[in-house]
Amino acid sequence: MLIVMKNTATKRQIDEVVAAIEKSSLTAERLPGAQRTAIGVIGNKEFVDQDRMLNFPGVKEIIHVTKKYKLASREYKQENTLVRIDKNVVFGDKKPVIIAGPCAIESKEQFAKIAKRVKDLGADMLRGGAYKPRTSPYSFQGIGLEGLKIMREISDKLKIPCISEITSIADLDLFKKYVDMIQIGSRNMQNYDLIQKVADLKKPILLKRGMSATMEEFLLAAEYILKHGNPNVVLCERGIRTFETSSRNILDLNTLVLIKLESHLPIIADPSHSAGRFDLVIPLAKAGLAAGADGLIVEVHNNPKEALSDGEQSLNFKTFESLIKQL
Amino acid sequence: MLIVMKNTATKRQIDEVVAAIEKSSLTAERLPGAQRTAIGVIGNKEFVDQDRMLNFPGVKEIIHVTKKYKLASREYKQENTLVRIDKNVVFGDKKPVIIAGPCAIESKEQFAKIAKRVKDLGADMLRGGAYKPRTSPYSFQGIGLEGLKIMREISDKLKIPCISEITSIADLDLFKKYVDMIQIGSRNMQNYDLIQKVADLKKPILLKRGMSATMEEFLLAAEYILKHGNPNVVLCERGIRTFETSSRNILDLNTLVLIKLESHLPIIADPSHSAGRFDLVIPLAKAGLAAGADGLIVEVHNNPKEALSDGEQSLNFKTFESLIKQL
Amino acid sequence: MLIVMKNTATKRQIDEVVAAIEKSSLTAERLPGAQRTAIGVIGNKEFVDQDRMLNFPGVKEIIHVTKKYKLASREYKQENTLVRIDKNVVFGDKKPVIIAGPCAIESKEQFAKIAKRVKDLGADMLRGGAYKPRTSPYSFQGIGLEGLKIMREISDKLKIPCISEITSIADLDLFKKYVDMIQIGSRNMQNYDLIQKVADLKKPILLKRGMSATMEEFLLAAEYILKHGNPNVVLCERGIRTFETSSRNILDLNTLVLIKLESHLPIIADPSHSAGRFDLVIPLAKAGLAAGADGLIVEVHNNPKEALSDGEQSLNFKTFESLIKQL
Amino acid sequence: MLIVMKNTATKRQIDEVVAAIEKSSLTAERLPGAQRTAIGVIGNKEFVDQDRMLNFPGVKEIIHVTKKYKLASREYKQENTLVRIDKNVVFGDKKPVIIAGPCAIESKEQFAKIAKRVKDLGADMLRGGAYKPRTSPYSFQGIGLEGLKIMREISDKLKIPCISEITSIADLDLFKKYVDMIQIGSRNMQNYDLIQKVADLKKPILLKRGMSATMEEFLLAAEYILKHGNPNVVLCERGIRTFETSSRNILDLNTLVLIKLESHLPIIADPSHSAGRFDLVIPLAKAGLAAGADGLIVEVHNNPKEALSDGEQSLNFKTFESLIKQL
Repeated sequence: MLIVMKNTATKRQIDEVVAAIEKSSLTAERLPGAQRTAIGVIGNKEFVDQDRMLNFPGVKEIIHVTKKYKLASREYKQENTLVRIDKNVVFGDKKPVIIAGPCAIESKEQFAKIAKRVKDLGADMLRGGAYKPRTSPYSFQGIGLEGLKIMREISDKLKIPCISEITSIADLDLFKKYVDMIQIGSRNMQNYDLIQKVADLKKPILLKRGMSATMEEFLLAAEYILKHGNPNVVLCERGIRTFETSSRNILDLNTLVLIKLESHLPIIADPSHSAGRFDLVIPLAKAGLAAGADGLIVEVHNNPKEALSDGEQSLNFKTFESLIKQL
Repeated sequence: MLIVMKNTATKRQIDEVVAAIEKSSLTAERLPGAQRTAIGVIGNKEFVDQDRMLNFPGVKEIIHVTKKYKLASREYKQENTLVRIDKNVVFGDKKPVIIAGPCAIESKEQFAKIAKRVKDLGADMLRGGAYKPRTSPYSFQGIGLEGLKIMREISDKLKIPCISEITSIADLDLFKKYVDMIQIGSRNMQNYDLIQKVADLKKPILLKRGMSATMEEFLLAAEYILKHGNPNVVLCERGIRTFETSSRNILDLNTLVLIKLESHLPIIADPSHSAGRFDLVIPLAKAGLAAGADGLIVEVHNNPKEALSDGEQSLNFKTFESLIKQL
Repeated sequence: MLIVMKNTATKRQIDEVVAAIEKSSLTAERLPGAQRTAIGVIGNKEFVDQDRMLNFPGVKEIIHVTKKYKLASREYKQENTLVRIDKNVVFGDKKPVIIAGPCAIESKEQFAKIAKRVKDLGADMLRGGAYKPRTSPYSFQGIGLEGLKIMREISDKLKIPCISEITSIADLDLFKKYVDMIQIGSRNMQNYDLIQKVADLKKPILLKRGMSATMEEFLLAAEYILKHGNPNVVLCERGIRTFETSSRNILDLNTLVLIKLESHLPIIADPSHSAGRFDLVIPLAKAGLAAGADGLIVEVHNNPKEALSDGEQSLNFKTFESLIKQL
Repeated sequence: MLIVMKNTATKRQIDEVVAAIEKSSLTAERLPGAQRTAIGVIGNKEFVDQDRMLNFPGVKEIIHVTKKYKLASREYKQENTLVRIDKNVVFGDKKPVIIAGPCAIESKEQFAKIAKRVKDLGADMLRGGAYKPRTSPYSFQGIGLEGLKIMREISDKLKIPCISEITSIADLDLFKKYVDMIQIGSRNMQNYDLIQKVADLKKPILLKRGMSATMEEFLLAAEYILKHGNPNVVLCERGIRTFETSSRNILDLNTLVLIKLESHLPIIADPSHSAGRFDLVIPLAKAGLAAGADGLIVEVHNNPKEALSDGEQSLNFKTFESLIKQL
């Protein structure tokens, strides 16, 4: 941490800041410059949360050097983390993992049909929503427990692992029982209560980036999971909210690439939620893998025109097949 | 809803879209233009979630006319909603409500001291965090239940109502018992599980805007509460995330003013979290009231230099007194 | 400047960075920390543009401490700058300056009518566009030179100074001759060619913030003018572009307040362009002054329903009168 | 255009709006809905700029259907536009065009060295800045005319076309004489004076997206050029400004893909300015091409550690070679 003093700061003001730092068992180093003095706080092993130092007279600005995350950083662990779902599916390894399925599980018939087809076309895992966090209380909210049961049954039958999104700590036991990997959705990325309790289940977690979360906030959400003793975290970039509204959320491949450098955790891309419309999904999926994503999660529906949720951004079997061929 | 067809759309494609709409018991009106045809969907009483129509050949774009929120709109209820906390404190009435107190309750002594002073200076309600949702797992997370008990005791003693933030449905009973108004924080604005279960307590709720929530998403979160039969919702604008990082979050008074036009719910401003540094708090507080806010929520600490949380953005007694005088 | 080394950086890598800094006649101070070494660059009198240091092996990050602007900073000049237009109109002094007039000058009759009325109601200066930079080539682009002549004539007649926006260096002589203050619009805030040549005219300049300019970029645009020997710069906050599109651009009062702290230059607010619709203008204008703005620039039209440009955000005489009364 | 009336709008108010539309020689179609009336404006052949209709009593909102751009749209011209620079280099055709070179031309020796090498490695065109628009007046601003002359000489010698950025209409003749393609930079994307005068030179133009320009504003800037009779426009996506500051500007591939659908103009990607640091450039370059970009513009320097400008984001010969091999 660097405390930048105003150019008008007196020696006494500088001394007071130094004294306050040293009172916290940290070391303060004066850096007298041509224009002003800065004070380096250098003994810390972790991030120092001392923004209140801004209240000291003469202080102009606080600049943080150490990142707040630690266990999630590549400095802490150099080699890539591999997150293994079963003997065939491993995130972070050479082969990208393709997760596919409908936005929402509508019925057993529908899910079985889609699951069979995406598996045959090459998907490694099934996705399907049972509990949907919807912006509007009037939108379809998923079929709940029934959906989880359908997912488990089909998944076992086809011998392919599955993932679904949890939205409430009231459902922890169900998710422990019915799914192979638990998704924490964008809207819940900073629902620390949920994150920590899901972490405790020790199942693999797919943590989606909040649509306006910074890289640091995203890695800190992962840090909550790692700190709870669960190393099986896969990150997911799904587009960020910007001023540009001509498509839904801009797929942030800059941050995906940066996370590969900064962190040892695997990270996949979600082109469907980023695009918001099916005709952008394939190019964005290809771009994600070209940038180095460890996998993709893609919405596929047997009949997007009649999907109960997110039909506008779902691939159909034909376009999904085309995607798989192009990868 | 308006479905805009491509200029190359054929009559058959237009007919298919019209047929699909009419199948959903809605009325479709063809609007042949100079360049292309648009199809108006006009029988709907509520928002129509038909973005999947984008999958029909020839469709270029979907434009929504009806807003997704309904109970929260001024079209639904013209007169201002008043949210009454006790016989003295009413949100939405002529007099702005001033809520003040520390970011976190640190001890009984500290809270008693601050509570006494802000009340004497003119605060209408006390605030204080017991459960803190922190971006970093290494930051101070609040003293929990003990904090709620301290708050209740001091609040009763000083005869002034209190508010605190809930972060988990595991704590519903405690909040029901100990506080007069429950805050749903920015990070949980789209935690619909929490929102709905808090709504069911029928206590007044302060709903803070997510730091990247659009006006529509914000009003839809309120809609969830209203739909659960709890009309006692006060909104809170607390700054939005933008490209500008020289202060913390930009206080969005445009949307505050617009919400006063669009909705009947009261809305207050939080200059402390927006500013992120104490020397911006007073001007932003004044601006908020000048724009028409129904109140303010402000962080005040007896010794910001040593606060365990958010010291950099807390007013001290002297500056809080100055704020009150200027209002 | 602080150069943060990776925790894996070797002594040799650190030495190389230090050597490179010292080669540039700067002083390097090693700051060995518990986790990694940082290197402080401390002899500089100005901003050091050495981001290329990122190419040295072992370097993790570059952190800037010194701001890039200098002449615009309050550290350079402590007292407020006053920008005097004539004996009555001074920006930065106690009394806020109210600038009013139509978006575009449409005819002599129209401008005379509006000018007379806003002056009578209390405006200090007239505004009116002659050359309009429009996003679309099909929008009304202003009546050009004729507009400037009308403005000068009416301005002289009513004895009230005037301001108009310049969009091309081809028009420098005209603006020198016809207007009292020259506006550099948001779209041209980073048109450094135009800025510098206008600065050379030595006339007072109203510099509008680019709709996505950071505070630092905004002050650096002012720095270009100051560096050209023209101290008569008034800044204008006019709303920034964010994810929120329910109103046009969010009036960024955080940055307005921060600029009052960081810089000695006067700054006014433009509620009309921020709001984008007339019914938000008055509350935002009041908020701007409450936050400490040194003035306002407001669009007023005699008949907004028939305005050739920006009618949706113009006040009419009645609402302008109401605004003046409320201030 | 759709004019949405309030649900309280009277028949008289609706009639007034209809009358006003018809006065403008447009056709108004009443769309009475379950909740409110909307009025469709349907006779227009172009975008209708009638936002001032918001001033009519009873009007709630204006919704635009027709896009403001026309000549740039694929509806206007279905087949891809090819922009030919010379017999070998064509933008928009199957083979992506690779433009490479230093951020700034520093000397003949430096430019010759880089040009020779990037050509040998496979670059199709040379880039190099002679006039640099810099955010800070204290940054290196380029060597000007001398730079253009060096570029021309080396370009002729190596028989490879060249591009450089123009920043002032004072330099039109020089750019006409010395370069093969003229770049309009991000900061000048809305400098309509410059755009139009450059368009008149009839040379091929590379138009970079403003860092906060929407797709519509970007295409409208191109529309200005097309409307001036110059069809040789290549667009360039170079990253947008968002809340995320961990890298410089987020490469917006969503909009790049959408522009390929919406417009017939070629569009390339600039991974260097987006990344802001060299270690992100290669993955972003690959992602850009995977998404369908018609080419790349990349900064390459013989010695990035000593570059006078943008060294932190330049590839060196070795990394550029690696990029070319991976494509």
